[in-house]
Amino acid sequence: MKENKTNYKHFNSITTRWMDNDAYGHVNNVTYYSYFDTTINHFLINNCGLNIKSDPVIAYIVHSDCTYHNGISFPDQIEIGLRINKIGTTSVTYGLALFKKGDEEASASATFIQVFVNRENEKPIAIPNKIKEVLILF
Amino acid sequence: MKENKTNYKHFNSITTRWMDNDAYGHVNNVTYYSYFDTTINHFLINNCGLNIKSDPVIAYIVHSDCTYHNGISFPDQIEIGLRINKIGTTSVTYGLALFKKGDEEASASATFIQVFVNRENEKPIAIPNKIKEVLILF
Amino acid sequence: MKENKTNYKHFNSITTRWMDNDAYGHVNNVTYYSYFDTTINHFLINNCGLNIKSDPVIAYIVHSDCTYHNGISFPDQIEIGLRINKIGTTSVTYGLALFKKGDEEASASATFIQVFVNRENEKPIAIPNKIKEVLILF
Amino acid sequence: MKENKTNYKHFNSITTRWMDNDAYGHVNNVTYYSYFDTTINHFLINNCGLNIKSDPVIAYIVHSDCTYHNGISFPDQIEIGLRINKIGTTSVTYGLALFKKGDEEASASATFIQVFVNRENEKPIAIPNKIKEVLILF
Repeated sequence: MKENKTNYKHFNSITTRWMDNDAYGHVNNVTYYSYFDTTINHFLINNCGLNIKSDPVIAYIVHSDCTYHNGISFPDQIEIGLRINKIGTTSVTYGLALFKKGDEEASASATFIQVFVNRENEKPIAIPNKIKEVLILF
Repeated sequence: MKENKTNYKHFNSITTRWMDNDAYGHVNNVTYYSYFDTTINHFLINNCGLNIKSDPVIAYIVHSDCTYHNGISFPDQIEIGLRINKIGTTSVTYGLALFKKGDEEASASATFIQVFVNRENEKPIAIPNKIKEVLILF
Repeated sequence: MKENKTNYKHFNSITTRWMDNDAYGHVNNVTYYSYFDTTINHFLINNCGLNIKSDPVIAYIVHSDCTYHNGISFPDQIEIGLRINKIGTTSVTYGLALFKKGDEEASASATFIQVFVNRENEKPIAIPNKIKEVLILF
Repeated sequence: MKENKTNYKHFNSITTRWMDNDAYGHVNNVTYYSYFDTTINHFLINNCGLNIKSDPVIAYIVHSDCTYHNGISFPDQIEIGLRINKIGTTSVTYGLALFKKGDEEASASATFIQVFVNRENEKPIAIPNKIKEVLILF
């Protein structure tokens, strides 16, 4: 069951790279995760004001999964859709999907669970307010 | 619930790389998948005799997931444990886990589902006998 | 001596990725080469009509170098400038430079030498006409 | 002119990865640089006592180049040879070469120039004594 683009409202364009293609001529399954990971960090930095160098909090991925529907290849142009599936006290669950330019149906769908931790001791802490406010309205 | 090394009998040593570490100083979550992906392909080539250049069959990942327990960092030495969770007609489900050298408990656990397809038309086909024979005994 | 953007007429936009940043918080030196490599393959596929799956010729890099002037970091937006430095019988020398969006001076400059080889026996062969015609006018 | 293994005395084993292979079935030219970069950082951390998290100095690459003689492919086993070509006041020039397991002649040769900078202001500073002492005797 491939997801439709209408299930997402935030999109991030990613340019594929020659070395994304593996020996079978398609983008390697691992690389999809870098597209999703990039989209989440883009969102945290640009939409939520996370400062990755100096904020007292950093965000770690504790779980991720991806289901692959259709292969893509460099030089395909792609967009990653992002939505918030769940907001916890210290964690967020993101829903993501990869769309080839012009496609309405996703070529792959993914979930990422992220936990916010204290930069010093790496213990989970409450999602910072400046981020939570954006997540709730998103 | 972290898995124990005794749950795996096949292991593949992987050398971490400087660029595996991300801006937070740990191996990036994406890179773990490259360790698992490498271990599966190593197994198919070295243990099952898959010829990635000329065999009429190629193997695609249709689903993967990973749960992260503890961070690792370059220059950590790691081993990936591999087991077969399920053998279908055209697909295999692998269980994988990442162990830091000397550790008995996994730092991360993963699942990969792989489908065998015809190299020409990319339609699923039965797992080749030379591979199935190894998987069954594994 | 940093190169100016006016030294290049072909540009390729690249989106940086979270994992491009290494433990020091800048894009790792290795990753710059993937930007240049991508730009060359983009040019060969889109401007010169190279078919990477079926053409009887493939193109290998035999030498590359890069000089780094200023660091860049995800989520910086970048453009790669490409020019042709030299056209040989079987090889091309590309000049490349990395520009942060809005910058006139390059953050890094590179050279790549590429040799065209027969896909079957990997022996050097003359640059295909459809590619040479574009290179000469470029 | 391919270099011989006898020109190097320090070696670092690297395990190739499935995704190192590109669409032409060989390790992508970019990836070689990650092998060299890893070997240098391994040497700085393990042989010279560099602490990448807390030392007041960090080391940036300001130039690199590589000449490719023979292709390699996953799952080839490789070793990287490292030597010190030149020690300056704030910089080191490394000579590196890639050897397939069992080969006496290099499949690729490289040079990396590294500058030591202050972690805070990123200005070049003298190579720390604990590192210089190792480099001189190397």
